[in-house]
Amino acid sequence: MLTQSIYSLTLYSLICSRAAHAAPSAKPAKHRNLIFMVSDGFGIAGETMARGYVQTTNNYPLEWASVLDDLLVGTSRTRSSDSLVTDSAAGATAFSCAQKTYNGAIGVSHDRKPCGTVLEAAKQAGYLTGLVSTARITHATPGSFAAHVVHRDMEDLIAQHMISYNSSLTPAPTVDLMFGGGRCFFAPETPNPAAGNPKTSCRSDQLDLWQFAQTKYGYSTISTRKQFDDLKAGDKKLPMLGLFTDSHMAYEIDRDPADEPSLTEMTQKALNMLHTASTVTHGNGTACAPGFFIMIEGARIDMAAHDNDPASHLHDIIEYWNAVAAVRKFIDTHPDTLMIGTSDHETGGLTIGYDPEYVWYPNVLTPVRNSAEVICSQIRPLSKDHGKLVTAVTTKVLPKQLGIINATHEEINNIVDGAGGSAKACKHAVGHVVSDRARLGWTTGGHTGVDVGLYAYGAGSSTIRGNKDNTHVGQLLADFLDVKPESITPLLAHQNTVQEGFDENLVDMKAGKSVSV
Amino acid sequence: MLTQSIYSLTLYSLICSRAAHAAPSAKPAKHRNLIFMVSDGFGIAGETMARGYVQTTNNYPLEWASVLDDLLVGTSRTRSSDSLVTDSAAGATAFSCAQKTYNGAIGVSHDRKPCGTVLEAAKQAGYLTGLVSTARITHATPGSFAAHVVHRDMEDLIAQHMISYNSSLTPAPTVDLMFGGGRCFFAPETPNPAAGNPKTSCRSDQLDLWQFAQTKYGYSTISTRKQFDDLKAGDKKLPMLGLFTDSHMAYEIDRDPADEPSLTEMTQKALNMLHTASTVTHGNGTACAPGFFIMIEGARIDMAAHDNDPASHLHDIIEYWNAVAAVRKFIDTHPDTLMIGTSDHETGGLTIGYDPEYVWYPNVLTPVRNSAEVICSQIRPLSKDHGKLVTAVTTKVLPKQLGIINATHEEINNIVDGAGGSAKACKHAVGHVVSDRARLGWTTGGHTGVDVGLYAYGAGSSTIRGNKDNTHVGQLLADFLDVKPESITPLLAHQNTVQEGFDENLVDMKAGKSVSV
Repeated sequence: MLTQSIYSLTLYSLICSRAAHAAPSAKPAKHRNLIFMVSDGFGIAGETMARGYVQTTNNYPLEWASVLDDLLVGTSRTRSSDSLVTDSAAGATAFSCAQKTYNGAIGVSHDRKPCGTVLEAAKQAGYLTGLVSTARITHATPGSFAAHVVHRDMEDLIAQHMISYNSSLTPAPTVDLMFGGGRCFFAPETPNPAAGNPKTSCRSDQLDLWQFAQTKYGYSTISTRKQFDDLKAGDKKLPMLGLFTDSHMAYEIDRDPADEPSLTEMTQKALNMLHTASTVTHGNGTACAPGFFIMIEGARIDMAAHDNDPASHLHDIIEYWNAVAAVRKFIDTHPDTLMIGTSDHETGGLTIGYDPEYVWYPNVLTPVRNSAEVICSQIRPLSKDHGKLVTAVTTKVLPKQLGIINATHEEINNIVDGAGGSAKACKHAVGHVVSDRARLGWTTGGHTGVDVGLYAYGAGSSTIRGNKDNTHVGQLLADFLDVKPESITPLLAHQNTVQEGFDENLVDMKAGKSVSV
Repeated sequence: MLTQSIYSLTLYSLICSRAAHAAPSAKPAKHRNLIFMVSDGFGIAGETMARGYVQTTNNYPLEWASVLDDLLVGTSRTRSSDSLVTDSAAGATAFSCAQKTYNGAIGVSHDRKPCGTVLEAAKQAGYLTGLVSTARITHATPGSFAAHVVHRDMEDLIAQHMISYNSSLTPAPTVDLMFGGGRCFFAPETPNPAAGNPKTSCRSDQLDLWQFAQTKYGYSTISTRKQFDDLKAGDKKLPMLGLFTDSHMAYEIDRDPADEPSLTEMTQKALNMLHTASTVTHGNGTACAPGFFIMIEGARIDMAAHDNDPASHLHDIIEYWNAVAAVRKFIDTHPDTLMIGTSDHETGGLTIGYDPEYVWYPNVLTPVRNSAEVICSQIRPLSKDHGKLVTAVTTKVLPKQLGIINATHEEINNIVDGAGGSAKACKHAVGHVVSDRARLGWTTGGHTGVDVGLYAYGAGSSTIRGNKDNTHVGQLLADFLDVKPESITPLLAHQNTVQEGFDENLVDMKAGKSVSV
């Protein structure tokens, strides 16, 4: 059952009253909504690949363009303060705080001090706020909008910040709505599965943040597909914490719709809820909030590219397109809304070319049924029994999961060998068998520094054009909402940015451990 | 000496009179110039790489942007009619004829029929026209604006078309100004070096096109740096055929300024000559021509990427930037001019990322002194004498030409082995030693299908934005000039599009032979 209670109703009134009583200087002159969409690890090559796939497999005209192509307005530069190749934390903080920072930084500046975010500034100005991601909600991109920690792997502490635990920005919680994965960081090390609390914990302490969110701020907490479906448009269940998986949500190619909502479904529901809540009126007829700000992340586009897994990359891109189409539809009926979309960086070094031929084969991706991640989770445990492993690869993985019925000995051996190696080695082996057949190239299991696409639609979008630094994208967000993230920074001076017991020296950023997902 | 003669003066008057007497329906309402810049084989990754290099080696601010970044307005889709990965011929014909065609097609449609080009339509409407390229002027990109042949390797026939030999569009030649390389296709098989004619021939017949251009149309023909320098701004030596090398011009990294003008110098001189000539007035004070159309190509960006040679790629990109800066300067003082810039495709699958590190090292490129092409032309002849080859690689190539003073045995062996293989193998071996140290990845020695950048500046540029199909870019060109390439198509119905003795079956497009340069 939903944990809908008097707390949420009380809090909802509080939101409304705070918006109404905001200082005139901070109060936006007109109602507006801002939807910031982040396609993590998605480059110009990914867009081209997905377009070529959909165009070819549907026999669309040669000039056919995707929903995202229609909204392209430029590109974004992505470097961080300490490298020409960013990670997602520095990339997201460039958007949220509109400033350059170091790889690994979550809502902190280059000198490791908390920086006010556009989401926090929006909240202070009375807007409703939301974060949607297919990753753990404590992951780098959503984290950088509402948390301030010196290293992205401090997810215990990020979870605390996300629900304003010990926040200097109280009394109201900063984020009104969260949909995504990662509930395990909200459960105490010894879980308390009573009353629908998470059964699995990733925490290294006994904090029960799920319970805290309910009792302190009146969060509605949901964790199942049914609870999600039961949320009707118009329900006023804010603040809302809806986390549907322990860790990341499934790749779209693997997702069981009976278990998890899609990115598009979460997007639609979040927009409806925030819009409805922000347009509730006081007795005098003025709206409760000046609008809403939401960040929506297609997070696993990136992870599939880390795995050099083209089919998973493709299907998460297409699902991201669907979410963009839903946003466009929302804006068409709510023209006071701006969508800005971009990526924090490109991942994988995907290219669409394969010496010596000038061609690639989209149809190779059509019969793929599972991600390399799922396949490897199934075959790596078999690696101690060579015969069983070979049988699984030849009778299941290749013909049924990858749709390859004429595998070569080399392809079989590559996957068998990969299964005996690390998880990454296995996933790359699977990904490369498919990529090689499709004639798609990758150059890395990490990020690249290549500029990414910039997309916009709706109110104010006509003036957005060109190549922007990622920090300028962040400034665009703040400017549209007429808020100043830097005005929040002094309020965060005493925010705890270091997770107790976390040794940064044990995390080798350069080795890709902490940035591989 | 220049072949400046009575012919050119006569022809110049003819140009003027044709412009003045164009049918009213075809005559543009106002003076305007269009500069179309093509960065062949240049992708978003190349731009990011060059920016990172210049930013890092000059200690520019983190948000620093290149001259080209400032002019980005969108991206262009590049596919051809028969592949998701285009070649330069189909790519250039998409621009020139504003229609999709097959890989290898030069100014002909998908059904192998001549299609009118924007340059030809501009000429018919009275504009002056120009083509500048660092490749052979008979190469795919310039060729597709003034020639109509069914296969790009028919360069004998392309040369004929470029100077309107047996053209159905006579009496005036179609192209008023050409600067570039490739004079060997204008010399008869048995060259006639008298009077400054080319000493080397690539033709398989006895046509002396150099002489023909002079005598039939009064072309001024120049072929040396000194002749180029002697052209003063304001000289009215149109039509002009200035070809400075037998084949392609040198890579910028190898170029001897005493021998060859740079792309920027050719750009500046071409703009000055076309502008001056187009603004000469008749007795009644009206301008001789409604303006000019010129296509300017940074051609060897592509060839360096084919070789996976990052330093040559870099320096040709920076030289292209310089040319763009010169164009921008011209437009600042001639605001009736529009520049549109884009690429026909990306080449090499360059990415800026290298597992597992999130970094790349621009400084590795700084001491590189020669292209892989030049290095391999020097060391491949030594491959029969292993000792001599190893000495050359260890005492010259690595320390002096690549700036690597601590080469590993593996690096030495890779180059030595490469030198014993094909030209391509050698160039890739050299390129990869540098790329690996810089942590730059490539996926192919051919093209990729990834979208490329779209750039614009000047008159009418404010409305250009978004992701465009390459054929739409071609339509933008025609629309700005207010001309209709399709109106030229019927005039070309009897144009000979097939080169006698050329067997297409002997050219394997897919094997990359004909598309490797």
